[in-house]
Amino acid sequence: MAKITAEQVYDRLLNFDKILEQRGQIRFFLGDVSIVVRQRDVVGSIMQEWLEGWLRKNNYDYSPNPNTQMPPDIYLDTDNREENLLEVKAFNYLASPGFDIADFRAFQEEIIEKPYMLHVKYLIFGYSMTEDGIVTICGIWLKNVWEICRAMSNYPLNLQVKDNVIHKIRPAKWYGSSSNYPPFECLEDFVSAIDETVFRNPKTRDISGTWCSRFVDAYRQQYGRTLQIPRWNEIKDRYVRQ
Amino acid sequence: MAKITAEQVYDRLLNFDKILEQRGQIRFFLGDVSIVVRQRDVVGSIMQEWLEGWLRKNNYDYSPNPNTQMPPDIYLDTDNREENLLEVKAFNYLASPGFDIADFRAFQEEIIEKPYMLHVKYLIFGYSMTEDGIVTICGIWLKNVWEICRAMSNYPLNLQVKDNVIHKIRPAKWYGSSSNYPPFECLEDFVSAIDETVFRNPKTRDISGTWCSRFVDAYRQQYGRTLQIPRWNEIKDRYVRQ
Repeated sequence: MAKITAEQVYDRLLNFDKILEQRGQIRFFLGDVSIVVRQRDVVGSIMQEWLEGWLRKNNYDYSPNPNTQMPPDIYLDTDNREENLLEVKAFNYLASPGFDIADFRAFQEEIIEKPYMLHVKYLIFGYSMTEDGIVTICGIWLKNVWEICRAMSNYPLNLQVKDNVIHKIRPAKWYGSSSNYPPFECLEDFVSAIDETVFRNPKTRDISGTWCSRFVDAYRQQYGRTLQIPRWNEIKDRYVRQ
Repeated sequence: MAKITAEQVYDRLLNFDKILEQRGQIRFFLGDVSIVVRQRDVVGSIMQEWLEGWLRKNNYDYSPNPNTQMPPDIYLDTDNREENLLEVKAFNYLASPGFDIADFRAFQEEIIEKPYMLHVKYLIFGYSMTEDGIVTICGIWLKNVWEICRAMSNYPLNLQVKDNVIHKIRPAKWYGSSSNYPPFECLEDFVSAIDETVFRNPKTRDISGTWCSRFVDAYRQQYGRTLQIPRWNEIKDRYVRQ
């Protein structure tokens, strides 16, 4: 079994397998009759399994995360579960990215406990399905989490908010024409947005006084590097354009 | 192209194709990798298309209903759209039948306008899917609509009620051990339950005074037969057991 990095997965799919030129379909077989399944939303939930099939077929070593609720989907290095972590996402390219990044409250805790979760690579498939059920991959990206996150008008992150309670972190549209809410340019700016959201969210405000210093300490322990996290007000104008 | 009746479809699937002994699966193909799709709910929504594939494969004439929102799914006699009407339903056999029969308000109107809609045959597949994605048909039935409908504790039909407004007619569990709410024994009893529901439903009460006589007239015009519809109170005890 060979080893492969997230970057090599992306490169091989794009340039060797020429994934953007392939056509796919979903078929249902029963008895001696088979039909094409024309349900777009199914594709979004099976690309992770497809990628695992691809890794097996190409004899690459990997391990799926037994906890399917939390990133990463896949450990590419089975000997080191803090590097080469891969999360697989898929969305209907004719709509906007519709997947969730994470539950906000769990995420802010998670990156203090496991700072390497900030370096999970997101392998993202933008697919389309014709009326006839032909599936095409229209775009493929390998991204850091901050490169697919953005602010929104009244929060430093794009959040799903219900009855004033913050739930999921939702993605940016990181490709195509620029919007008033561009993706974050670096890890530090993304952490600044999380820090500000910890403060603004009533459910996490009581831990906001020390959240940023706890995160910086944890990250230094993991990587030996002291991050300089800007205040949200200093960088806000770059991410919330009028 | 040959003609086939609903009864012959059922008989051929059961006895010639031995559908209960077949194993199926859903597969996703992309590039040179294919995987098994293990999403149970997909099966429920593709059995109709599978049946259409089966009719084509066996060279039977049929026509799908262009209005996918209303029964029937399939006209088996393309020259006569008032007979040999087929509705295809599928449900997870390890749960209970979960499909909708019809929107109540639309249904009580529909059967006066088109009494033959009461004689649509329901071809019902009870499927299961293993953890590995192997699909098995555990049961197949051909039923009249009244044979898969029942009363509930506070209404003469099993209804989905939201904020006191009646929405969908929901099915009975017509197989296996008997419950306190058995399916209707005949068309007339089912119509009695509809008539009583027209009266009890605030949104249809103003038409309830003449609903039953209008229905009986329409049915006689279609079939030359005058139905004797019992009052709900006369038959209630057979359908709502204590």
